[in-house]
Amino acid sequence: MKLTFLGTSSMIPTKDRNTTAILLNHKSENILIDCGEGTQRQLKKANISPTKITKILITHWHGDHILGLPGLLETLAKLNYNKTLEIYGPTGTKKFIKELYKIFISQFSKIKLKVEDITKNGKFFEDKILTISAQKLDHTTTCYGYAIQEKDRRRINLKYTKKFGLTKHPLLGKLQQGKTITYKGKKLTPQKATKLIKGEKITFIIDTKKPKNITKFAENSEILVSESTYSTKNKDLAKSRKHMTSKDAAEIAKAAKVKKLILTHFSQRYQNTKELEKEAKKVFKNTVTANDFSTF
Amino acid sequence: MKLTFLGTSSMIPTKDRNTTAILLNHKSENILIDCGEGTQRQLKKANISPTKITKILITHWHGDHILGLPGLLETLAKLNYNKTLEIYGPTGTKKFIKELYKIFISQFSKIKLKVEDITKNGKFFEDKILTISAQKLDHTTTCYGYAIQEKDRRRINLKYTKKFGLTKHPLLGKLQQGKTITYKGKKLTPQKATKLIKGEKITFIIDTKKPKNITKFAENSEILVSESTYSTKNKDLAKSRKHMTSKDAAEIAKAAKVKKLILTHFSQRYQNTKELEKEAKKVFKNTVTANDFSTF
Repeated sequence: MKLTFLGTSSMIPTKDRNTTAILLNHKSENILIDCGEGTQRQLKKANISPTKITKILITHWHGDHILGLPGLLETLAKLNYNKTLEIYGPTGTKKFIKELYKIFISQFSKIKLKVEDITKNGKFFEDKILTISAQKLDHTTTCYGYAIQEKDRRRINLKYTKKFGLTKHPLLGKLQQGKTITYKGKKLTPQKATKLIKGEKITFIIDTKKPKNITKFAENSEILVSESTYSTKNKDLAKSRKHMTSKDAAEIAKAAKVKKLILTHFSQRYQNTKELEKEAKKVFKNTVTANDFSTF
Repeated sequence: MKLTFLGTSSMIPTKDRNTTAILLNHKSENILIDCGEGTQRQLKKANISPTKITKILITHWHGDHILGLPGLLETLAKLNYNKTLEIYGPTGTKKFIKELYKIFISQFSKIKLKVEDITKNGKFFEDKILTISAQKLDHTTTCYGYAIQEKDRRRINLKYTKKFGLTKHPLLGKLQQGKTITYKGKKLTPQKATKLIKGEKITFIIDTKKPKNITKFAENSEILVSESTYSTKNKDLAKSRKHMTSKDAAEIAKAAKVKKLILTHFSQRYQNTKELEKEAKKVFKNTVTANDFSTF
């Protein structure tokens, strides 16, 4: 999985930071999490074609997380986007997207969309490779965190199967599915003929005060991407605006035993984010702060 | 008058060019012509506070000219903008702004607005210092060109008035208004006691095929800012999409006897604009092409 941060500022863009958008690439999936104003240009600067995007997950309908949507949708139409773009977000997403089309998007700029409102916690997407789950956060409007979980998979142990003369064969697919096979009279079990690769998980917790009961949702993530709007010095602001401090984010990372914590969504008052990183590292060592165009 | 180009790309932003927005500063007026996606960040990069903006003129409601509006309005509210922001644009502008507020702008983010639909050619704004006029262009949707005309003014000839002992006096105001005054029994005429300074004019012709009857509208402008989406090589594209070539723009500049022509709104196919500038200069020598953050 590859993460590209396209915007790392909260509320208002700065010279160096655009508002929130993060692209997660996993094989043929390119999932955009939020789409702040100017995201299509950030993609251009990152040399990523917007037509690669397969899904958009909206955390919540505040301007700094969605104002890039109409421009992106118009541009996709101009670039003859030919997939079905899936958009998921809190209740109201379907209605808002319809309104966008009414106001902003030319009648000639239609692309195929599948828009779904998320109404409850839990898994809302699943295919052979990934599941995506949502959990309600605690912000000034309905806001969801997202966890993208790669499924466990079996890699063929070719060294072992070669002994049976089995290197390229449809039966290998069965082994990968965890089934025991018989080849030229010999039995091969998935336990011996494959190696189980645990799927990785990336969790996004963006725009919320420190949520209760979030540990399980973020548990064992390879990466936790968390908002970190303020430092502890401004914890009163964080409280009143329902945002987190970097210490809050680090405490979630620690409790959920994630491998790496990436902080983003910084208030414009922080010209650099050293203070926030330092504060978080005291609680959770493997913390980094994202800049625009950071990749992981 | 000072012009700052905040975006010079047509349709889709490029790495180097944002979509259209131009700021015209004249004394306490800061008039924004169009507001493409990302304009608020371009202002930040140009070190211009958005709270300075007094008026916004919308040429037409295509995404690349207006998608920066909701973000700008939200940001103005967050910055406690305390003037009344005037917004002018083609019929529909009032309705569109209302819709923007319904969808995008938090109920807490209200600022004072005066929104007016322009429904016909001619002067639609006038105060003691400026007039602003509109003229319908010929694009794929209703689109207006704008001419901003400084009024003529009289500068006191202090060398002359000093002879009468008149250097600081309310009567000088009367002279500036073009009135004859009597001071200590002596008559002073505005012809002798003041110098007439001709007001300057700046005209914006953006998003149109070469319009008919545009010469008078642009006549004698100090600066004509014109769209120049294509070069003559792509004149068929220009025709079908109702845009101009740089040669078209230069022909208007020549016929209208403007002093300087500034080209903008370039198709992303032109990585640099030398070709367009060269083509225009053959017809009208004092032509320059604008880049993002160019000032004049």
